[in-house]
Amino acid sequence: MAVASLIVQKFGGTSVADADRIRAVADYVARTRRRGVRVVVVVSAMGKETDELLRLAAQVSDTRPGREMDMLITAGERKAMALLCMALHDLGVPADSFTGSQAGLITDNEHTKAKVVEIRADRIRSALEEGRVPVVGGAQGVSLQNNVTFLGRGGSDTTAVALATALSADACELYTDVSGVFTADPRVVPGARRLHRVSFEEMLEMCAAGCPKPEMRSVEFARNHGVKLHVRSSFTWEPGTWIEEEDPQVEQPIISAVVSDASEAKLTVTGVPDRPGVAARLFRGLADRLVNIDMIEQNISIHGTTDISFTVPHADLPAALDVCRTLQPEIGATGVLSDDEIATVSLIGAGMKTHPGVSATMFETLANEGINIEMISTSAIRITCVVRRTLVEQAVIVLHDAFKLEAE
Amino acid sequence: MAVASLIVQKFGGTSVADADRIRAVADYVARTRRRGVRVVVVVSAMGKETDELLRLAAQVSDTRPGREMDMLITAGERKAMALLCMALHDLGVPADSFTGSQAGLITDNEHTKAKVVEIRADRIRSALEEGRVPVVGGAQGVSLQNNVTFLGRGGSDTTAVALATALSADACELYTDVSGVFTADPRVVPGARRLHRVSFEEMLEMCAAGCPKPEMRSVEFARNHGVKLHVRSSFTWEPGTWIEEEDPQVEQPIISAVVSDASEAKLTVTGVPDRPGVAARLFRGLADRLVNIDMIEQNISIHGTTDISFTVPHADLPAALDVCRTLQPEIGATGVLSDDEIATVSLIGAGMKTHPGVSATMFETLANEGINIEMISTSAIRITCVVRRTLVEQAVIVLHDAFKLEAE
Repeated sequence: MAVASLIVQKFGGTSVADADRIRAVADYVARTRRRGVRVVVVVSAMGKETDELLRLAAQVSDTRPGREMDMLITAGERKAMALLCMALHDLGVPADSFTGSQAGLITDNEHTKAKVVEIRADRIRSALEEGRVPVVGGAQGVSLQNNVTFLGRGGSDTTAVALATALSADACELYTDVSGVFTADPRVVPGARRLHRVSFEEMLEMCAAGCPKPEMRSVEFARNHGVKLHVRSSFTWEPGTWIEEEDPQVEQPIISAVVSDASEAKLTVTGVPDRPGVAARLFRGLADRLVNIDMIEQNISIHGTTDISFTVPHADLPAALDVCRTLQPEIGATGVLSDDEIATVSLIGAGMKTHPGVSATMFETLANEGINIEMISTSAIRITCVVRRTLVEQAVIVLHDAFKLEAE
Repeated sequence: MAVASLIVQKFGGTSVADADRIRAVADYVARTRRRGVRVVVVVSAMGKETDELLRLAAQVSDTRPGREMDMLITAGERKAMALLCMALHDLGVPADSFTGSQAGLITDNEHTKAKVVEIRADRIRSALEEGRVPVVGGAQGVSLQNNVTFLGRGGSDTTAVALATALSADACELYTDVSGVFTADPRVVPGARRLHRVSFEEMLEMCAAGCPKPEMRSVEFARNHGVKLHVRSSFTWEPGTWIEEEDPQVEQPIISAVVSDASEAKLTVTGVPDRPGVAARLFRGLADRLVNIDMIEQNISIHGTTDISFTVPHADLPAALDVCRTLQPEIGATGVLSDDEIATVSLIGAGMKTHPGVSATMFETLANEGINIEMISTSAIRITCVVRRTLVEQAVIVLHDAFKLEAE
C-alpha cells in the first residue's frame, strides 16, 4: 500500500485571528485528513498579537534584550497552537501542539532573527506515525545553548518549509490573507491577475523587489530543498499560486509580475575621486554599521570624480548618513545627499532572458507617462527602476498594461 | 567570606499587572540586590491574563484537553517573566528568564494540576553563580514525557517554595495584593490585625478553612522542607507575615484567626439503616466520581436509622447528588437533601491545644447572636461550625471580638 501523501499547512495570523477563524482552520485540517492526507500544521500568532507584544515590550523597557524579546514574542504562537489543537480535538482529530524547541527546530543564537541550522523532527515523526496531527508554533526554535529563539517576522513560512524539507513532505501550503501571488498589487491594479505558477527564481526576485508574501527566506529554503510551495487563502480555500522549479519544457511568460517597493531611501555621495579603494572604504564602513545596501549605481567619471548612489531601508538611513558624513573628508567627497521620497518599480519574468527589448519597452512606457527614471538595476530576470514615490503607483499601472499582464 | 544570603521572591499577578507595576517590581529586585542579597524571582501571569486565556479556550473548544490547556495557560507567565527581565536590564541588572522546563521543575503528567516530582535547578544555579537574576515563570514545569505542564491556579507559590528548597534559600517571599495574613478578612472585620507570625500548622488549617492566600500546597511544601515563608505586599513593601516552624519556647496565642468559607454545600442522606458497610458504600461511590468531601457528620442512631451529612464544593454538588440518589435504594435510605445556602466559620490557634473551653466560648458566642450551628468539625488547632450563609459575616465579627483578636 502506498504511503499516504504528507502536506505541511501553514496558517498566518489573520487565518487564526479569533475563535471562529481557529475553528474554521480546524475544520479545514480535518477535511484534508479525511481525504487520506497526513497533515503537519504550522501556525502564527493570532491576528495582531505579535504587534501587541512588541508594544507591551516598548512600554516596559528601553533596552529590550534579544533573548527576552524572543521569550516574549514566542508566547503568541504558543497560544494559537494550543487553541487550534483544542478545536481539532473537538472535531475528533487527535492533535498535539509543539513549540519550536519540541519540534526540533535548532537555530543559531541570533536572537530576534535566528536562522535554522538543523531540524530534529523526531517528535513530529512519532506523532504522525501515531496518526496524530502535529501543530507547531511558527517562527520559533531553540539554540544550541538551550535558549528560546525567534526567527523574525514572517518566520512561520520558514518553519513550514523547514519541516516540509525534514519530513520530505509532498507540498507546503502557505495559507494567508491573500489568495495567491498576483501580477501586481490588486489594490493598485484592479485588473491584476493571480498567477497559477511562478518559478522559485521569479518569486525570489519578486520578494527582493518588494512583494510582501511569502517570506523570502522560506522561498530560498524551498528552492534549495526542492519543496513545492502553494500560496493560497484561508478565507476562500480556493487554489492559489504554486511556486516550484522552472519546467524547461514549458515556455516561460516574458513578464510574470510588476512589483513596487516604497520602503527604501536613496543616498548619493557626490564628487568622489575616481581612484581604486574609495568605494570599498565607503561600503566597508556601511557594512560595519550593519546597513543593508540594495541598489548601487556609480556614474561615469567626469573630470576624475564620480557620484555614488545607493538605496537603503528607511530604518537604516540615519546610520548610513552618519557613515557617509564621517567618511566624506577621508575619501575626499564633495557632499552627501539623501532622498527618502523615492520608490522602486520592478518587472520580473523568467522569459525576459530570451526576449530582448523588455528594458526598452519599460523605459519607453515610463517616459511616455512623464515618469523620470533615477536609477536602474537589473538581473537576468528582473529590471528595477527608481522613480519618485508619488509616481510609483502610476508606473505599476502603465507597466501592467503595457506588458498585457491582465490578459490570461 | 560568607556567601551572600539568597532569597526567592515571588510576585503574583496583581504585582505585575501592567508596565508600571513590572518596572516597580524590577526596581524593588534591584534594591534587594544592592543590599548584597542574591535573588531568584518567580512571577505569575500579568493581572487577569490567566482568566482571559481560560475564556479564550472556552470560546474555541468544548473538550479543552489538558495538555493543550497547559500549553496555552503557560504563555501567560512567559510574557510576564520576559518583560520583567527587560525592565531589570534597563536598570543595569543582568537577568535571564526561564520557563518551568528550563528551570528544571520536573512534574508528573497530570495536566492542569501537575505535581512537582523533582527539581533540577542547574541552570538557575549557573545564572546565580554568574551574578545574574534568574526570573522563573510560576506554576509551570515539564513532565518526564517532555510535555509542558501547569501546576494549577496559585501554583506560582509552589514554584517559589520548590526553588527555595532546591537552592537552600534563606527565605521565600510571597508578594501579593494583601499585606500579610490577618486575624480575619479585613473587608469583613475592619479591626482585623495583621499577624507577625503564624506556624505552618496554623497556616495549613487556615488554608483548609477558606483563607485564599497563600496557596495551601506551597505551605505544605515549605513545612516539609523547612522553608521560611514571608507573605507581604508589593504595593506597600512593608514587612508582612512570617510563616515558619512553631517555636516551643514561645507561648502560642490561643486563637490566631477567624476564617470563613462560603464555597461549599451540604448534603444529607436521611433514614440510613444503622448497619456496617452502609457509609462505606456511600463514600466509595462519591470517591469514584472524584467528589471532594470536606466535613462529615453522622447523627446518633434513633430506631435503627441515622442521618449522614457532609459538605462538598459547590462545583461537585451535582455529581454528589447524582451518586446519593442512585445509591439511595441500594442502601435503603429514605431521602437525599441538599443545601447550598451554608457557610463555615473556623477558629484557628495553636494555643487551643492547651486551653480548654475554646469550643464552649465559640458556641456560646454564636448562640448569643442567635446563630444556629448546623454541623461541627474539629482538629487539634481548629474548630469549624456550619452556619447559614447569610449569617457567616456576623459570626466572624462576633468571634473576632469575643476572642479579642483586635488587641495586640
